[in-house]
Amino acid sequence: MSFEAFPERVYVQEVVTRDGLQIEPRFVPTADKIALIDALSETGVAKIEVTSFVSPKAVPNLADAAEVARAIKRRPGVTYVALVPNLHGAEAALEAGMDELNLVLSVSETHNLANMRMTPARSLEGFRAIASAARGTRATLNGSIATAFGCPFEGAQAPDKVLALAGAYLDAGLDSITLADTTGMANPRQVARLVAAFRARFGAVPLTLHFHNTRGMGLANVLAALGEGAERFDASLGGIGGCPFAPGATGNISTEDLVHMLDEMGVTTGVDLEKLVSLARGLPDLLGHDIPGQVAKAGRSADLHPAPAGLRAAS
Amino acid sequence: MSFEAFPERVYVQEVVTRDGLQIEPRFVPTADKIALIDALSETGVAKIEVTSFVSPKAVPNLADAAEVARAIKRRPGVTYVALVPNLHGAEAALEAGMDELNLVLSVSETHNLANMRMTPARSLEGFRAIASAARGTRATLNGSIATAFGCPFEGAQAPDKVLALAGAYLDAGLDSITLADTTGMANPRQVARLVAAFRARFGAVPLTLHFHNTRGMGLANVLAALGEGAERFDASLGGIGGCPFAPGATGNISTEDLVHMLDEMGVTTGVDLEKLVSLARGLPDLLGHDIPGQVAKAGRSADLHPAPAGLRAAS
Repeated sequence: MSFEAFPERVYVQEVVTRDGLQIEPRFVPTADKIALIDALSETGVAKIEVTSFVSPKAVPNLADAAEVARAIKRRPGVTYVALVPNLHGAEAALEAGMDELNLVLSVSETHNLANMRMTPARSLEGFRAIASAARGTRATLNGSIATAFGCPFEGAQAPDKVLALAGAYLDAGLDSITLADTTGMANPRQVARLVAAFRARFGAVPLTLHFHNTRGMGLANVLAALGEGAERFDASLGGIGGCPFAPGATGNISTEDLVHMLDEMGVTTGVDLEKLVSLARGLPDLLGHDIPGQVAKAGRSADLHPAPAGLRAAS
Repeated sequence: MSFEAFPERVYVQEVVTRDGLQIEPRFVPTADKIALIDALSETGVAKIEVTSFVSPKAVPNLADAAEVARAIKRRPGVTYVALVPNLHGAEAALEAGMDELNLVLSVSETHNLANMRMTPARSLEGFRAIASAARGTRATLNGSIATAFGCPFEGAQAPDKVLALAGAYLDAGLDSITLADTTGMANPRQVARLVAAFRARFGAVPLTLHFHNTRGMGLANVLAALGEGAERFDASLGGIGGCPFAPGATGNISTEDLVHMLDEMGVTTGVDLEKLVSLARGLPDLLGHDIPGQVAKAGRSADLHPAPAGLRAAS
């Protein structure tokens, strides 16, 4: 880990309308989702994970996936992604013209069974079927490895197992990989090691880090990953996207807090922080509750305050 | 910054009853403060900043400084500190038998005038008077440089100015230095640079880093400091200790979140995290509001959950 290894530019990938909204207690109206995505398209983020083409029974909050995907304005230069749990979802996402499909399975067998009702091996078969269906389309395929830094049921996952799964993803025809800290268990030392091992094994294969701030280490994990040259990060506006195992804890790392830290360190993101903060400040009205993101409350470090009037030494 | 430069052991210094409580809306009863400090003494923290011997008009929440300092149990191996704003406070702290006095001024002239109603030069004169008064006693003197990473009125402070002030502290007879990010403006790159510059100039002079999590970067700043070999950190139980310029934002870095991150990275602290978390979970009752600390809500990364019953593949 070293500041010298930092990338010159970081790609910020917004997941608020998918990972952020999926477990919110309140359904966010379709028109509000579309307006939020269109506004995010204007902030300079590199990717937006728009929605998930999943069973409306499993995730009622995203039952409007197809409608949202159809209605958003596609800004050139932004990659619009949908999460897909299976071939059926993939076909719907391709039909909706998504730029990228995000396929996910958990390296932890217990978590994959709980989440997907499939063994990881069976999920991988599904990936191969999706890769076939996507062949000849313009869509790229990203594979997310959930619980890559730990599973709430099984605990730590062996790095070799994670890397072997990443290799299997690439063999199945996927283009890029996300290492996801699904329930916020990663620590910075572990992150640095796994990112370095990934790079050593897979060279320039595009790698995204997906962190949650469940235990307060979200931006420390980003720092550790940057120190190994990582350049793609998922984040959620306002830091929403909590985890069912940690009631009251924070969710995904906050997009505006991430961009603020990168700005302060002189790392280019191409993102307009002011626009992001303004959108984050609108979330409490949309969701009916406060948000974990800090910069929306505190302002930027560079936002100075007027000195108290009449300042002078007492004597 | 590198993991190889990490210290083998980190000293965790608890400031909840001073920095944490000083701007709380509610006065915490003296007996509760004493009980909290006595319980903290049993957790393994290296230092406890017990209180501030300051004018009760300026900080009504700490009007019971002398009573608290007299009544707490002194556990051997723990250093009991009081913040002192002036010679009068220093004399009271010495009389109360504090192990260490913490003297503070802001490197930002505007902030020092606002906070202390003195120029920094005048504050330094006060330091010399306190050093004289403490000579021959067993008390050590720590000097805190407030706004070392930025002032909410003036913005960034030149590292050379900060280091020159640290030199003046040592010349005035102080034993150790704290670089304080008073309003949570520091970023990790800046932290690494300032810690490295401090080490280059002052060698083994004991250095504490005092971070606030106002903009979500608290633990990332700790990581950057560890990467330069820093081994002493202030933190506040529950992460309380907000800043008047950032309503709703988090306060000091949370002691339990700090210890949890260090534990997870294999850095020894000598602190019993379970005891800390249990104390943090008592804070909302004491304060009448929720706390920003995350680990008290989410549990440790290592706290596993039972897998859902009857898990099996769907087909």
